Amino acid sequence: MAKQDKQVEAITAMDQDFAQWYTDVVLKAELIDYSSVKGCMILRPYGYAIWENIMHNLDRMFKKTGHENVAMPMFIPESLLQKEKDHVEGFAPEVAWVTHGGSDKLTERLCVRPTSETLFCDHYANVIQSWRDLPKLYNQWVSVVRWEKTTRPFLRTTEFYWQEGHTAHATAEEAQEETLRMLETYATFYRDYLAIPVVRGQKTDKEKFAGAVSTYTVEAMMHDGKALQSATSHYFGDGFAQAFGIQFTDKNNKLSYVHQTSWGLSTRSIGAIIMVHGDDNGLVLPPRIAPIQVVIVPIAAHKPGVLDKAREVAATLGEQFRVKLDESDKMPGWKFAEYEMKGVPLRLEIGPRDLENNQCVAVRRDNGEKTVVSLDQLDKTVAQLLDAVHAGLYAKAEQSLNSRIYDATDWDTFTQLIAEKPGFVRAMWCGDLDCELKIKEQTTATSRCLPFGHEAIGETCVCCGKPADQLVIWGKAY
Amino acid sequence: MAKQDKQVEAITAMDQDFAQWYTDVVLKAELIDYSSVKGCMILRPYGYAIWENIMHNLDRMFKKTGHENVAMPMFIPESLLQKEKDHVEGFAPEVAWVTHGGSDKLTERLCVRPTSETLFCDHYANVIQSWRDLPKLYNQWVSVVRWEKTTRPFLRTTEFYWQEGHTAHATAEEAQEETLRMLETYATFYRDYLAIPVVRGQKTDKEKFAGAVSTYTVEAMMHDGKALQSATSHYFGDGFAQAFGIQFTDKNNKLSYVHQTSWGLSTRSIGAIIMVHGDDNGLVLPPRIAPIQVVIVPIAAHKPGVLDKAREVAATLGEQFRVKLDESDKMPGWKFAEYEMKGVPLRLEIGPRDLENNQCVAVRRDNGEKTVVSLDQLDKTVAQLLDAVHAGLYAKAEQSLNSRIYDATDWDTFTQLIAEKPGFVRAMWCGDLDCELKIKEQTTATSRCLPFGHEAIGETCVCCGKPADQLVIWGKAY
Repeated sequence: MAKQDKQVEAITAMDQDFAQWYTDVVLKAELIDYSSVKGCMILRPYGYAIWENIMHNLDRMFKKTGHENVAMPMFIPESLLQKEKDHVEGFAPEVAWVTHGGSDKLTERLCVRPTSETLFCDHYANVIQSWRDLPKLYNQWVSVVRWEKTTRPFLRTTEFYWQEGHTAHATAEEAQEETLRMLETYATFYRDYLAIPVVRGQKTDKEKFAGAVSTYTVEAMMHDGKALQSATSHYFGDGFAQAFGIQFTDKNNKLSYVHQTSWGLSTRSIGAIIMVHGDDNGLVLPPRIAPIQVVIVPIAAHKPGVLDKAREVAATLGEQFRVKLDESDKMPGWKFAEYEMKGVPLRLEIGPRDLENNQCVAVRRDNGEKTVVSLDQLDKTVAQLLDAVHAGLYAKAEQSLNSRIYDATDWDTFTQLIAEKPGFVRAMWCGDLDCELKIKEQTTATSRCLPFGHEAIGETCVCCGKPADQLVIWGKAY
Repeated sequence: MAKQDKQVEAITAMDQDFAQWYTDVVLKAELIDYSSVKGCMILRPYGYAIWENIMHNLDRMFKKTGHENVAMPMFIPESLLQKEKDHVEGFAPEVAWVTHGGSDKLTERLCVRPTSETLFCDHYANVIQSWRDLPKLYNQWVSVVRWEKTTRPFLRTTEFYWQEGHTAHATAEEAQEETLRMLETYATFYRDYLAIPVVRGQKTDKEKFAGAVSTYTVEAMMHDGKALQSATSHYFGDGFAQAFGIQFTDKNNKLSYVHQTSWGLSTRSIGAIIMVHGDDNGLVLPPRIAPIQVVIVPIAAHKPGVLDKAREVAATLGEQFRVKLDESDKMPGWKFAEYEMKGVPLRLEIGPRDLENNQCVAVRRDNGEKTVVSLDQLDKTVAQLLDAVHAGLYAKAEQSLNSRIYDATDWDTFTQLIAEKPGFVRAMWCGDLDCELKIKEQTTATSRCLPFGHEAIGETCVCCGKPADQLVIWGKAY
């Protein structure tokens, strides 16, 4: 029996079943394939190309701020994982354990890294001697493994891809500055490359990273109003340094412990792109990370001159942009649907009549806007259109975020907003863990962060009514 | 007790103890650190930067030939690994087994990938339907794990970094062409980026990859005359396709199995760089992959104008090259030794007298040659000097290789050459496994390859004396 060629089929409407829409998009846009390993995804060429563009641009930002890449082993001996008490408690329940090498049982179990603080600390203890060796500003691009019960492509997978920065500094102040510098780097990256506005803030103690003094986060709002923790940055004080003995001789010849940070952004960011910008026709990609920025579709390609001109345009634009010319024998309408599904930011249509007029038709993916543009200085026009797509995506996402942040000063309003209004709710909190737990239990909303630069909206805790001076943003989360 | 600042100390002389020299270089040049995980190395910033440059350039060559990057899971379920009989026999004895996720025992063991043929095949069976889906030209940049008894940095480590290409084609011919195309890509890469000449050839059946129909190799000769298998390319026929059911509908609507290849180059290539180009002062890096191509050392930096001029030169050259200006307060001689250890291809010295004459002193790392060069059009001079370093390194390595390939037509000459002359020995072979095993047992030399384009040097097997029509290159190997 012959297998059939694939066709782009319609996907579930977003507002009908958002979860199914998401699954349809990641599969139909050929971002991933499921694998034989439970909870692990295969990044297909189109999905991996997005990640490559994310890596390339973020890595450049890291290097500009003096960071260097390294590679640590993927395994952590059990005894090393156990050196910092809070850290092992947080991660041990969700790691994969290697117990055998070939047919031999190992004398000590190794876990596959769920994160690499312990490996970096072990190395730092070895290579940091003097104040001259500081700061150490290291990063690595790797995959990590956390044994998850339920998984969804990009959002929560057993193995996922990320970068993890790990730095060591002479003073607490320097380390705190680094923690916030990298949080700001993430916010800038989300704004300038992914066209996604984020809320910056600090995590509550309950939500902070295992072993951290404080954890900072950038939170984005998805189309369905849910929050996605989009990157985090942690300040460790000298807790890990004490556990691992990372000491240096300062300028006065005195031994001191280093102060440390770590920070990470993962393939979750691709989930954010999908759920912030996508629509009922599929993916919508921000131009600066789109694997294909411009697709050229010849119309009536058999007519004299059409294909030649399309190739000429593709060659010229290809010097400056990521361009694809689709010369296949599929119908133009079929191609339109395919590249819309794949979220290509700009489509150029070139047909016989366009040749006569030295023009083509440009169609924006984000809003469907069609413009007839001259082939003269097309590179400049395309650059402007791509910038316009980026700006348009950001403005729409910002409007969507800002219009769905609500305030609650009493419990009834709070629970009603969480239950009925997709989005974030701002409310005062007394700082008590019991209130945080009660809110989660009764509403399923969690504290997303104590946002930076927000003023108090009351004086009492929305949950218990006791005095409160902390403003928290609450929301349901992925 | 205060820790001491590090100093560059002398290393063991190459010809006194080559193995110790190698270890000294990888540590003193700060390429790696040992980790707490047996057999796994930490790639430090300088070592990883070399790998980044290798990845960057080789990836560009892959993309030019139409290859796309993907990411497969790091785990392989035991049942998947077992699908191809020869493959599992070859790899099962040396894999790491994950048996537990958190505190739960897994229902099926997972191995950490030692190589990913089985994962790619599983995916290909899922995404290949029609001839329109072919060829699939996929690659991934990852680390893999093989449980090794004895390890050495870069040459043989439990976890190592590599790229693995995996392709599927409609016909055997196309797949065979791809196998040789990628072998040639590796040879070109070694020549043009690493300044290393290689011998191309086919592996004997004994030495071929587990599950392959045929394996091709590029072999390089190290300073001590030993061979390093530097990259391999495998042709699989349709063996894996049959085991995994990878079928497609061809243009005549008939179901056929695909034909496949795989090919890989690893961090071993850094071992090759060290052992081909290094000398008693440390590392010598080919300019095109050197993390620092030009180091600028100011002489009498406190004298007026020196540091300003050095910064100006660094800024100008920095637009085109990877440049480091060392402004630290160390003595110039100390800096010379440090950057020689690190193998920086070109050093520029700028002192007060140079300022007066609008010049600087350029010193080549490969041969120590000093030239006084004008600061006018310094970028062109530097480009020429770096090209000259590359050409010089290649010529020296080629001379070293060619002058140490010997011919043997009888057993006594053969064993004497292997025992006394570091290098390769060419000899005729009957094709019998027994002879190959006897040679290995009695001389420790292994068949490196049946080299391309070499003519027969006799008519009888150097081992058994029976008729022989295959020329083999033999050598001791890493």
